Amino acid sequence: SHPFDIATLDDILLPSWNEGSNKEAIIDFVTKTTTKGSAEFIPVADRIACFDNDGTLWSEQPMYFQLAFAIDRVKALAKDHPEWKAKEPFRSLLEGDMQKVLSGGEPALLQLVAASHAGVSTDEFNQNVAHWMKTAKHPTTGKAYYKMVYQPMIELLDYLQANDFKTFVVSGGGVDFMRVWAEKAYHIPSYQIIGSSLKTKYEVGADGIPKLIKLPELNFNDDNTGKPVGIHQHIGKRPVLAFGNSDGDYEMLQWTTTAKGYPRLGLILHHTDAESEWAYDRKSAVGKLDRALNDADKNGWLVVDMKNDWNKIYPRQ
Amino acid sequence: SHPFDIATLDDILLPSWNEGSNKEAIIDFVTKTTTKGSAEFIPVADRIACFDNDGTLWSEQPMYFQLAFAIDRVKALAKDHPEWKAKEPFRSLLEGDMQKVLSGGEPALLQLVAASHAGVSTDEFNQNVAHWMKTAKHPTTGKAYYKMVYQPMIELLDYLQANDFKTFVVSGGGVDFMRVWAEKAYHIPSYQIIGSSLKTKYEVGADGIPKLIKLPELNFNDDNTGKPVGIHQHIGKRPVLAFGNSDGDYEMLQWTTTAKGYPRLGLILHHTDAESEWAYDRKSAVGKLDRALNDADKNGWLVVDMKNDWNKIYPRQ
Ligand SMILES: [Ca+2]
Ligand SMILES: [Ca+2]
Repeated sequence: SHPFDIATLDDILLPSWNEGSNKEAIIDFVTKTTTKGSAEFIPVADRIACFDNDGTLWSEQPMYFQLAFAIDRVKALAKDHPEWKAKEPFRSLLEGDMQKVLSGGEPALLQLVAASHAGVSTDEFNQNVAHWMKTAKHPTTGKAYYKMVYQPMIELLDYLQANDFKTFVVSGGGVDFMRVWAEKAYHIPSYQIIGSSLKTKYEVGADGIPKLIKLPELNFNDDNTGKPVGIHQHIGKRPVLAFGNSDGDYEMLQWTTTAKGYPRLGLILHHTDAESEWAYDRKSAVGKLDRALNDADKNGWLVVDMKNDWNKIYPRQ
Repeated sequence: SHPFDIATLDDILLPSWNEGSNKEAIIDFVTKTTTKGSAEFIPVADRIACFDNDGTLWSEQPMYFQLAFAIDRVKALAKDHPEWKAKEPFRSLLEGDMQKVLSGGEPALLQLVAASHAGVSTDEFNQNVAHWMKTAKHPTTGKAYYKMVYQPMIELLDYLQANDFKTFVVSGGGVDFMRVWAEKAYHIPSYQIIGSSLKTKYEVGADGIPKLIKLPELNFNDDNTGKPVGIHQHIGKRPVLAFGNSDGDYEMLQWTTTAKGYPRLGLILHHTDAESEWAYDRKSAVGKLDRALNDADKNGWLVVDMKNDWNKIYPRQ
């Protein structure tokens, strides 16, 4: 099922990746695990590859894009909620003081999520996200958010898919938020996208038409130890490849690369390109990468250096 | 991607299904939704078909097979639990009085589930299930349980898969229990199997090796309104086809056949063959089919009559 002859076209594999040990290690892993007769061959059914989303498949600065959606949604709803003018964190948000909103920590964020993500049917929510994706622009690049996916990662996903790997998104972000656009952006079916979620309630209206209503209550937090839990619940197999960018991916990488029986590959994207994207790691409020960077060597995880390993960030328009 | 030419081989489609309106309706649905240019064409990405498991893809009498596993597991563990001799529901179970065990209702069942399904790692649990599947025999047929899958349903799954439908199991049964054998039995990947689950906890041992431990606490009950909730969480799209056999499938069928935009097909398997399998419906403790049978006509759901619509139950050994 290779769409092209790898042997003769080797030179154009992963064109947005610079030649070097990381690109070599990726191609070597895929080649040895998909070559029949290889001692390290992995049957198609077990070729499971898991990717974090924020900061791994698309950008996440200056704030998670889903938070930007939540803020825009709260602003759009504010006319129906005059009480928000006197109530934190809404008041600070509406006054444009995001610093103060974020100082409210997790409780403030949960209130924003509840106001922007709950109390609507899943169909309505999808429409809200789709509309926002079509209209909202990133504050510094001016791009639509869904165009800030990483071209080198799209190439890697395509390369793995062409070699019969099943690629999964395993994100701390909301699964409903992602599925609206990620299926097309990454060529990944909706049921291979795993994320955090709110509880939903099944309701049948007087017209006999059922809806799923999103409730303001967390159902699953797909981050840190939640990632292996979510992988087990959803996939039921341990991945052979995992790719993340922050300490929230530590357990996903650990769960992947400590598994036995097959070769495993763990990868971390290190944001080092302040000119074309952003440079951040140990001290960033978004996508903090500290413990996983310390332990990468010891655990055999490859650290991909965005500035040195990539020659392109975003797809051409 | 059809493995054969449907036009010339029409006469051997679904060979274990008798000719009749139900077989005709299934083939008509698949034909019209997969024929390019048809007004009712469904793109491959949206060809989502969901199947209940117990009583729909395999037998469920005289008790859910997973309950038989739980009982055998409790018996095997009893030597390490002398206290069970004095403690219900274990005492009655060990004395062979299942009537009394079941009279304890849901609390008794949850205790059995906790004792047989929790307190082990996911890897250990999988080994327990695999061993049981290899060794346990059904009390009346004498067959291994995994051989009591329905040949006509395997043919239907294969037929749908050959026509680029993604087939999912959506079961009230335990997802970990099913994945051990269902992937092979139904030709369905582990990540297309959805079911009930216990919570799991990620633990890293002193040796640095992580495990997921199954906890004695329900995580998700994939039955009744839980089925559309599980479908949304896991798949993120509404099915175009759903097949069940009991009132526990009512909401899955409703969620499927009330959706707009595409043709939808809802099917109910009615157990009518007391000679080759079992005959039961409105008054059965297992797989009760009452409300869904009443409303099938009104809701446009097809009722498959096991005795009349099928000419075979189980695969040849
Ligand atoms: Ca991330
Ligand atoms: Ca059933």
